[in-house]
Order: sequence, then structure tokens, then C-alpha cells
Amino acid sequence: MAKELKDLTKRSDNYSQWYNELVVKADLAEQSAVRGCMVIKPYGYAIWEKMQHELDRMFKETGHQNAYFPLLIPKSFLSREADHVEGFAKECAVVTHYRLKNSPDGSGVVVDPAARLEEELIIRPTSETIIWNTYRNWIHSYRDLPILINQWANVFRWEMRTRMFLRTAEFLWQEGHTAHATEQEAWEEARRMLDVYADFAENFMAVPVIKGVKSANERFAGAIETFTIEAMMQDGKALQSGTSHFLGQNFAKAFDVTYVNKDNKPEYVWATSWGVSTRLMGALIMTHSDDNGLVLPPHLAPIQVVIVPIYKNSEQLAEISAVVEPIVKQLRALGISVKYDDAENKRPGFKFADYEVKGVPVRLAIGARDIENGTVEVMRRDTLEKHVAPLEGIAEYVKNLLEEIQANIYHKALDRRASMTRTVETYDEFKEEIEKGGFILAHWDGTTETEEKIKEETKATIRCIPFDGDTTPGVCMVTGKPSARRVIFARNY
Amino acid sequence: MAKELKDLTKRSDNYSQWYNELVVKADLAEQSAVRGCMVIKPYGYAIWEKMQHELDRMFKETGHQNAYFPLLIPKSFLSREADHVEGFAKECAVVTHYRLKNSPDGSGVVVDPAARLEEELIIRPTSETIIWNTYRNWIHSYRDLPILINQWANVFRWEMRTRMFLRTAEFLWQEGHTAHATEQEAWEEARRMLDVYADFAENFMAVPVIKGVKSANERFAGAIETFTIEAMMQDGKALQSGTSHFLGQNFAKAFDVTYVNKDNKPEYVWATSWGVSTRLMGALIMTHSDDNGLVLPPHLAPIQVVIVPIYKNSEQLAEISAVVEPIVKQLRALGISVKYDDAENKRPGFKFADYEVKGVPVRLAIGARDIENGTVEVMRRDTLEKHVAPLEGIAEYVKNLLEEIQANIYHKALDRRASMTRTVETYDEFKEEIEKGGFILAHWDGTTETEEKIKEETKATIRCIPFDGDTTPGVCMVTGKPSARRVIFARNY
Repeated sequence: MAKELKDLTKRSDNYSQWYNELVVKADLAEQSAVRGCMVIKPYGYAIWEKMQHELDRMFKETGHQNAYFPLLIPKSFLSREADHVEGFAKECAVVTHYRLKNSPDGSGVVVDPAARLEEELIIRPTSETIIWNTYRNWIHSYRDLPILINQWANVFRWEMRTRMFLRTAEFLWQEGHTAHATEQEAWEEARRMLDVYADFAENFMAVPVIKGVKSANERFAGAIETFTIEAMMQDGKALQSGTSHFLGQNFAKAFDVTYVNKDNKPEYVWATSWGVSTRLMGALIMTHSDDNGLVLPPHLAPIQVVIVPIYKNSEQLAEISAVVEPIVKQLRALGISVKYDDAENKRPGFKFADYEVKGVPVRLAIGARDIENGTVEVMRRDTLEKHVAPLEGIAEYVKNLLEEIQANIYHKALDRRASMTRTVETYDEFKEEIEKGGFILAHWDGTTETEEKIKEETKATIRCIPFDGDTTPGVCMVTGKPSARRVIFARNY
Repeated sequence: MAKELKDLTKRSDNYSQWYNELVVKADLAEQSAVRGCMVIKPYGYAIWEKMQHELDRMFKETGHQNAYFPLLIPKSFLSREADHVEGFAKECAVVTHYRLKNSPDGSGVVVDPAARLEEELIIRPTSETIIWNTYRNWIHSYRDLPILINQWANVFRWEMRTRMFLRTAEFLWQEGHTAHATEQEAWEEARRMLDVYADFAENFMAVPVIKGVKSANERFAGAIETFTIEAMMQDGKALQSGTSHFLGQNFAKAFDVTYVNKDNKPEYVWATSWGVSTRLMGALIMTHSDDNGLVLPPHLAPIQVVIVPIYKNSEQLAEISAVVEPIVKQLRALGISVKYDDAENKRPGFKFADYEVKGVPVRLAIGARDIENGTVEVMRRDTLEKHVAPLEGIAEYVKNLLEEIQANIYHKALDRRASMTRTVETYDEFKEEIEKGGFILAHWDGTTETEEKIKEETKATIRCIPFDGDTTPGVCMVTGKPSARRVIFARNY
């Protein structure tokens, strides 16, 4: 294994290959036998569970409840909202039959033609349609509003080109679907949840994000406005990490969901939806990891500290274990997840390499001489620096170190983003700069035509019109028409 | 609402209708627009989340890790294990296409015939096949074993007759899939997980269960042996609440999963699988609830205590709130989930009825006079008894009361089961007794023929051959052939 790990492609040689290999070598996920679908392995799933845990807490703290809606959606539901069906019809997995039977030649099973569904069912690519069809029966009066619901679920989009975590046919996600009496309240909800996502990305994933609005071209199919958080990967490409949509009354109209207001008059209900997915795993991996493997933010690492004993015989091991066990207890009492790896069938070097590739934030190595000296060797995964620390007070020391690592990798990513963000004035300059990667701030005339021309010619898209930053007007770098403010362009995942 | 609740059908009038109504009136779930699929509403989902939380902890404490495998399974995988395909082929939802397109007449979308899959995909009815196909690449040596994995997932079985929670086409569950080097270890694992299920059912759900072995007829499709926990509902019918399967080497052989043992020889891997589902919600509801609505065990109630203020004006409410707020804090400090319902737009009577139908274990009502007297009115949901308790020390008092309720409803269910369990000697006696409901202990000759004859003639099935209880041999009540011991018969859900 230690040898295999050395074979990890360098980021500078081939960033894309480095990513694909790392996902497998760090035991996060692998391709399955089903086209475009991955198996999320226990170590990868443990990180996802930590993400879920924090997000779920944040959703509940902002007043949301979880519920569960059907996996399958009647085909006709999808057609109700014109933009929505346009956006999703081309990537729908379709259930047409409900039974198999023995094949006549006895070689296995075949689809039973007698068990054809009257109306085909679609595996949900997202659940607005089935949920708004349900909300129709839940909402009668303004007293029934708001409805603040979230769902943890699997969804399916038949993507042609897939990459583990970043774009898979099936993926795991959460989708919030809220219903409001007023337009104002729905706008506020959509913005609130974007803030929750940004908070989570920055404080748990240690991934700095830019909050903003999507251009019409990049908007969710069926939304009036899409808010986004955009992160920058190490290669300078953008990764859309979470979106929150103001849906207006589109789905209420499509599914005839009205409520009686305080003046006893019927009105269509206002909606939002918002989601993040296992794609966040891709953002996490690509933001922090290095040529030695994964680098995990301590706030989401399944194992925050690993302790490896260095010993020559079982007597020494017993002596070390006697010292380590109280430290394990102290660390756990501080809420730190720790693994004491005293497995005898693997050498320390192998263990070191394994935890390094798995991105465990802090490694403590302790041998017989350390015990004599009252010390321990501490390795921090973010910088790979080793130093010796006193055993006395080690738990508190590690606790502080974990916070330092969390802050350090965030700032490293923030600095990288700053150094890879440039402002350009002309389209020629833009074309030159976009080749170098990163975020380019440029003026744009606000039209889909110009955006599409830029995309076609440079493969760059508008990642967002940021909420913050320079709001000075100017002229579009392509057409010379007026531009309200600079927007962020980048190539993207 | 209070009026509507009164309309709940009585159990004695129509138990089945009572159940269906209760699921809706307690806001647990409702039918969806998709045949056989339900919407799990926030209150129902909150109970399921508490179940998940405890089970997940128990799985992790017994060494298991979570992972995630694809929703869709290639059709050919299903045919690999002969019994398995026989058991599931007739209820498979089949994905045949991956794209929709605009219908030529412009009236919506139709399945694009050009997007037909080469091999159809099945929505997992259970995941043995896709998982064992994956394990083939994970397992090479005895050092790779055991693999102890659990998956939380949705599954789909096209059932003809569905009932909310008890039998739905889509349901949520967990499925454990473990791989072992030895037969012995796999047997132990299958038994260990049955014990975990029984522990959970009895100590969290307050549902007494009988552990035992399924007859060949009732065995999981592909298993060598199926262990089960069987619960008795109030109408005397059995509800299979969890199963754990010893799969032998069946799936290892079907998917060619071998490992090299310590003697450097290849061997097939031994397997188990085990699962519980949202069906447990049905067991929970039907075991404890009454004609006034849901009765929830405190260990799984999303709201364990509700506090309702009784006031005439806002001054009184302020006075009551000042007293209640520290109590809320004390209860939360004891780990108790409490809701203070000071909503002004609903009368206390309405609130009482609502929390009663939702099964909140303890209700505290507090008015101006209570404050003068330093008392509070306590209502326990299990017995509907009201009494007055001192405000002083109320948090500790409630904590103890919750445990008392938990124990009480368990013992009530246990007593009911004892009173509805009878032993019979002859088949005539059996036919008479089975009409009265309950568990019937009788001798059986161990053959599928006899079991099927009994099922056909009486609608009763063998629920299990219990691990415990009377093991005296005898003769089969139907055929007079030798019987190793009495087994449990019942009609079932």
C-alpha cells in the first residue's frame, strides 16, 4: 500500500488524474457496475455523514423539518412547469414496467411485457413537482404557511460524462422545499439558506465561497432567481457548491396551490428550493488535498487524531499503551475523535502512509524513548511538519492544533483564490487570462447572447454576479454595451 | 381538528380502519400520487429519525460502518442466485429508458425510443446482488475480512396491496451486508444482529418480540437460514419486525467472491444480511395506540413533554411563561425534548386534543391558580390519567414519569401477548383458536406441505420456531408425524 500511494499522480502533472486516483486511493469511492453510479465506501461515507450531521443541525436551527417524498414521479408531473421539463427531460431514468419473468429460453429473466405501466414513472431528478403536487392538499389558509421542509434523498440524472462525487448519475443530496404566503418571505428564505450553505462551506469544509446570483443561462430550470456559492479549486476552476432558488409562484401555478389570505382572498403560494449534494465531497477533496493524498478539515474528519505506537516488542507496546490510553480518554472527553492504531500486522511506516493519504489531520507517534523523555512526535497533515511536544497537556495541545489546522487550510484556500482572481478590461485580455485558470472579473452586458458567445469561444461561464465586491458600472468587454458591474467568469466543474 | 379527532374509528369497531385513519390524523404519513408510495410527513419522519439514530449507534457499537451502493441493479445480476431472483422478479420496478423528449403533438413529454437501455436496470428491492458484485473486488485475503457494512437506503418492491408503513412499494430501511472468513463467524453475526434488533424493539419501541427461526417457506430468498423478531399487535396479528439472514456461501458463489485463507487456499466467503424498515413505524403505532390516537414510547417520542399555558389575558400568560421558562431549561438539561406551546391562536382544548392524538407522553397544563398554589396539572398519555404535582422538582418528576410510561406500555404489551398466546393439541382446536387471534403454539411436522395446507385452510403462518420456550417433542397436529417442538402460528401483517 505504502508503495502504491507513492504512485499518486502529481497535481502539476495531471490534476484531473490526480483527483480520480485520490478518490480511489483514499478509499472514498469507486465506480460501480452501473454506468455513472459510484459506490461510496465507508471512509468516504463517514465524511458525508459528518457533513449531513452539521447541515441537518443548521437546517433545524433555522426552523426546518425533515420529511420524505416518493422516489418516483409520474411523467405528466414533469411537464407541468415548462422550464422545468425542458431542463430535466433529457436526463430522466424512466420506469416503464413493474415485473420481470423467466425468459422463455430459461437463461435468466426478461421484462414482462404484460406488466407495462399505463403512465411511465421518472426517478426523481429533483422533487419540486411531486412535492408541490402534495403541498396542494396541505395548504388552504395563510395559517398553514410557511411550510419549511427538507428531504435527504438520492436523485438520478442521466449524465453523459460522469466523475466520482463531482457529477454522477445517482447522487445523494438534501433538497429544501418551502412554501410562503408572501414574495418577501420567500426571497428572505432563499437568501437565508444560501447563508447557511456559505457558513457550512467556510466553517466546516474550510472552503471559501463567493455568494452571488446566477445569470439567466445558469439558473435552475423553473426558478425566477438562483443564488449560488462558488468555490475555487486548486487548478483555478470553479465548483458550484450549493444553490438556493427563489421559485416565485411558478410551481404553485403549475400545481394549482393557492391559499386564502387574511383578507379572505385566494392567492398563489410563493416557493423556494435549495440543495447541496455529495458534490461537496469533490469540493472538499479538490480544495485542500496535495500530492501525498487527502487533506481533511478537522471539523469534518472522521478520525481527527491517530496515535501510532513505535515498539520493538510486546513489552514496549504494553508500556506505550499504558501511556496512550489516558490520552485517548482525555482527547475523547474534549470531543475529539481519536484512533489508537496498535495493530501488530502493519509496520509504522505503512500506517503513516495510510493515514497520510486518508488526510487524518494530526498524527501522534510515540516510542519507548518518547516515554522516557515525556514527549511525543506530532505530525500535522496540512503542512506535513513534524515536531516534538511534551506529553504533559497533550490533549489540550492537540485540540488547539486542530483549530489551527482548520484555520490554516481555510486561509491557504482564501489566499490561493485571491492570487488567482484577476480583473480584465478587454476581451483579448480575458481570453489570455482565462487560459491561466482562476476567477476573472469582467464587465458583461447582461445578455444571454454575449454569455453564450464567451462560453463558446473560451469555455468560461459566468459563475455568479457576486453580492459583494466592486459595483462600479462599466462597459461589456465583448459588446461595449453598458454593464452594471463586474461579474465572475471561470471555467468550471 | 378537535372535532375531527373524535371521529377516529374505534379499534373494536374496525381495527384496520382505525389504523389507516390514525396514520393520517396523527400527521405521520399520507398516500402519494404514486401508486403504493407514501409521503412521510414531518411528525412521522421525526419518529423514524429517532429510530435511525438509535439503530445507527447500535450498529456502530457492534463494529459496523455505513456505506452507499447504487440504487439501480443490472437485471442480469438478479438472475445469478436462483432463489433470489425467484423471490424478487415479480415485484421489480424496471428502468428501460434514460431520456424523455417532447411529444410530437406538443402535449407534454414522451419516452424517447432512441434512448432504450441495452440492459434494463432494476430499482433495488434489496442490495445483496450489487453489493456482492462489489465485494468481489474488495476481498482477496483473509486479512480483508470481516467486512461489516450497513446501508441506509430506499428500496422498491411492487406490492399489489399496500398499507402505509406496513407494506409500501417504496420504503426506507437499513440493510446490513457482512462478509466473513468462516461459517461460524457468519452465524454469530446473524444472531448478534437479531439481538440488536430485539434490544431496540424492546428498549426503545417498548414492543416485546419473540426471537426465532423462520420455516423454509418464510425464509428470505437466497438465505440458508432467516432469524426473525415477531411482535404481536393489539388485534392479535403478528408483525415480523426485523430479520437477519445467514446466507451461507450462496452469494459468494453467485458472484465468485473468494479469499485466500491462512493456509494459502482459496475459499468462498460467508455472508449475512439483516434489515429493519419503516415497517417498524407500523409496529410502533399498532402496539401502543388507543381510540384517542397515538401513544408513543418516551424513548422515541419527538416531543416527550408538552407544556400548555391556561390563561385569560396576556398578563397571565406572561406570568405563566416566567414560571415555565426555567422548567423548560431544566427539562432540556436532563436531555428531555420539550415544547412550550404558547400559541395564542389555538385554545387549550384544541391543543390538548392535538397532542393527545400525536401521542406526546406527558402533558403539563399550568394556569394562574397553579402558580398561586405552586402546582401543575400532569397528564400521562398512556393511561390518560391526570393529577396535580408540585412545581418544585417537576423536571426530575417528569424524567421519572417518562421512564415509568416507557416501562408501563412495554409491560402492557407483554401482558397482552401473554393473554393472547395459547397452546393447542389438535387441528380442530387450532382452527377454533386461530379465529380469536393471537399466537398459537402447536406441534408441526416440519414440512412445507403441512405448513401450506394450514395456511390455505386457516390463513395462519408459522411466525417462527422460537429460540426459547417449551422444547418438548410431540406429534404434528395435522399429520400426526413427529414434531421436534411447538412453533408459533398466527395470522400476520
